Amino acid sequence: MVEIPRKWYNINPDLPKPLPPILDPKTRERADLEPLKRIYLEAAINSEFSQERWIEIPDEVRDFYSLWRPTKLVRAAYLEKFLDTPAKIYYKNESVSPSGSHKANTAAAQSYWGLKQGVERLVTNTTAGQWGSALAFACKHFGLKCGVYMARSNYEQKPYRGTLMRMWDAEVYPSPGKHTKSGRIMLKKDPKSPGSIGIAKSEAIDDTLTHEGTRHAVGSVMSYVLRHNTVIGLEAQQQMEQLDEYPDMVIGCFGGGSSFAGIFWPFYYDKFVRKQAPKDTRFLAVESTASPRLTKGQYRYDHSDPMKFSALFKMYTLGHTFVPPPVHTGGLRVHGSAPTFSLLLHEKLVEAIAYNQLEAYEAGLIFSQTEGIVPAPEAAHAIKAVIDEARRCKKTGEKKVILFNLCGHGYFDLHGYEEYLSGKMTASDAKASVMKKTLGELYKLYPWDKPEV
Amino acid sequence: MVEIPRKWYNINPDLPKPLPPILDPKTRERADLEPLKRIYLEAAINSEFSQERWIEIPDEVRDFYSLWRPTKLVRAAYLEKFLDTPAKIYYKNESVSPSGSHKANTAAAQSYWGLKQGVERLVTNTTAGQWGSALAFACKHFGLKCGVYMARSNYEQKPYRGTLMRMWDAEVYPSPGKHTKSGRIMLKKDPKSPGSIGIAKSEAIDDTLTHEGTRHAVGSVMSYVLRHNTVIGLEAQQQMEQLDEYPDMVIGCFGGGSSFAGIFWPFYYDKFVRKQAPKDTRFLAVESTASPRLTKGQYRYDHSDPMKFSALFKMYTLGHTFVPPPVHTGGLRVHGSAPTFSLLLHEKLVEAIAYNQLEAYEAGLIFSQTEGIVPAPEAAHAIKAVIDEARRCKKTGEKKVILFNLCGHGYFDLHGYEEYLSGKMTASDAKASVMKKTLGELYKLYPWDKPEV
Repeated sequence: MVEIPRKWYNINPDLPKPLPPILDPKTRERADLEPLKRIYLEAAINSEFSQERWIEIPDEVRDFYSLWRPTKLVRAAYLEKFLDTPAKIYYKNESVSPSGSHKANTAAAQSYWGLKQGVERLVTNTTAGQWGSALAFACKHFGLKCGVYMARSNYEQKPYRGTLMRMWDAEVYPSPGKHTKSGRIMLKKDPKSPGSIGIAKSEAIDDTLTHEGTRHAVGSVMSYVLRHNTVIGLEAQQQMEQLDEYPDMVIGCFGGGSSFAGIFWPFYYDKFVRKQAPKDTRFLAVESTASPRLTKGQYRYDHSDPMKFSALFKMYTLGHTFVPPPVHTGGLRVHGSAPTFSLLLHEKLVEAIAYNQLEAYEAGLIFSQTEGIVPAPEAAHAIKAVIDEARRCKKTGEKKVILFNLCGHGYFDLHGYEEYLSGKMTASDAKASVMKKTLGELYKLYPWDKPEV
Repeated sequence: MVEIPRKWYNINPDLPKPLPPILDPKTRERADLEPLKRIYLEAAINSEFSQERWIEIPDEVRDFYSLWRPTKLVRAAYLEKFLDTPAKIYYKNESVSPSGSHKANTAAAQSYWGLKQGVERLVTNTTAGQWGSALAFACKHFGLKCGVYMARSNYEQKPYRGTLMRMWDAEVYPSPGKHTKSGRIMLKKDPKSPGSIGIAKSEAIDDTLTHEGTRHAVGSVMSYVLRHNTVIGLEAQQQMEQLDEYPDMVIGCFGGGSSFAGIFWPFYYDKFVRKQAPKDTRFLAVESTASPRLTKGQYRYDHSDPMKFSALFKMYTLGHTFVPPPVHTGGLRVHGSAPTFSLLLHEKLVEAIAYNQLEAYEAGLIFSQTEGIVPAPEAAHAIKAVIDEARRCKKTGEKKVILFNLCGHGYFDLHGYEEYLSGKMTASDAKASVMKKTLGELYKLYPWDKPEV
């Protein structure tokens, strides 16, 4: 029997150095986080830098988790056979949540926080739609209203993500749109704007600031978000122990960092804190070559959003004006990365690698043909790394145990697979571009002193 | 721990009367089934009337099942809470198979049979796409080629079902199409034909008969197909025993009959054969009012296909020329029903009820809002019956234990939910119609003596 964990694991006290503070973009000094409570949930702000290692999961959240948790740990025996590898491959199947990915793990916790705080409504921005769906699902459960800003191009490409969110009573706004001042300004500038992560984020913040009882929920990057996903790795530890196995490598895709942290943090604890790991386990994050922050970016302070609305976070970044090409992997199209992970990467305690979407879709197809489940294109990046590692094992004869996070399914991403099957997909659809400075007017909405534009 | 069953349960020896024989459509005498082996798999024909109660599941099939089995038995606690009912509701979650429904249970067995027989390719027809996807998935696993004829209107409404099947290397043919003589004839008559179950079936048989090494796989109705699904009920029995529960009612939706038989047959065995059931369990099949064979049809011999290609089966039927209105529930739009189930219904050992699609979609929405998973519209019919029963329990105070089969998810059916949410759905989109006599030319392809047209 596998138990749904009773506590989340918080890596903050176990980082090799203190997590660098968030800086005020104007003064570049430690930011006062209090004003942010008008935008974000109080518990989120209060616990971001928490030094408590084990944080109790509220019963209500644990009960909600039981709708789909514990998730299965599956031996990918047919993939192994296909690769003819001596490696053993295991995956944690997070695709079984009703919204289709690991994102429901933190959506549950944040919606519960909202309920406890007396917030009426959570709003957010979404790209691929996994996060927006998860938040809609959790808000419905905890009785909150939900608003989701989804970049118009994504919204039109995946109309049924919108339907799914509406089934859970969320309002879904193609972005830019007329619902917010930011959206109206953008529409005036460019009536046919396809939207972007940044614009959707601006609209979500604008909406939050202009509606009483509303807060902005965040789907990745922050330490508290990553922590909520550690139920994945904590379950995997129980499951591997029952099989008398231990991973030589833990692999996951990396956008903001939440699905990967979810699976590897508990093993990091084994290795570096409890120091009782039976193996010298390696941790490998897989990003997209369309947005190679971890492998080609710089470790420095930067804004987390292209509009410079956010404070400054120390992280691996390509610069907040970097706009990744429009690959079919919305969840990995990010210019920055989780500060906790960035610190570990800088200290060389974890590793990173990048693959392009053609490589990822090929891996996704192999996985679906051997193990059945169609992986989300984000997850397919991790699978590509798993396949490469398993093939190396074939050459060396090593019987490595590889564990990876199948963080979501791709049943809403079949237009991408269709493009791949028809031979029309390229390694990267277009070159990256640089964001133009815009939206200066919006800064007056923001609680920071107006940053330089 | 729940074990994947090692044997399927075959109801044939335990029916209250012998299963009526299949009749030759011309002579109306017991049909010689041997010629059918050119169309269907040998093992299928040989085992349809098997009197062996427990049939061993081959290791290869059981290993394949382990990709998604055992499936969870879930207490629908939040649905109970929403309904404020003293009833306990459990569902068996068959939606987690990679192809999205219970159909993979028999697809696995039939593909394995094909492999053993030395068949190179299986072809079939599909409506909602759940069956075609399952067969594509299983054929890929067992190394067979696969061809799927999908009515053009369904194919166009759900393009990603086609993508999914192609990911598993199946060829998917919108029907009618140019791939078969039948299709070309139909296209000539009506170049814009939306297709139908019957036309797709004709094309699949035409294809089978004109390609060496090809056989026609069947997704429901036949006793052997239903039997392959008993892994569902056999697992549920183990799971309920571990919870110290036993169902007062077992409920499932009813198209051809495979998902419902899959869950209730093992409980039927408990009640009527082993006679050790702790309760006088009722078995309720839920059909669509668009196709009310069980509640308004006649128990008599009829063809299973509108073209009269098939032999005669004794079953509840609305007549083989009955064409159900185009409701959003492809899987329940059938004029006939499984002969095994029809016999049980005629003997009053099981019950049936019909709901329209508006009632079903409302129930599906309630389920997704309480339990998360979006049910396939077919499964939503069962949920409507569960909700009604639970509401009756609220009135009477009875603490009934209700078990139902969540036979598939609705993530490829969101266009239907979108129509429901937008208020555009009607109880039934159109009136039923009567099939015109067509395709006389094709009868010469058929192994029977040419039946009267």
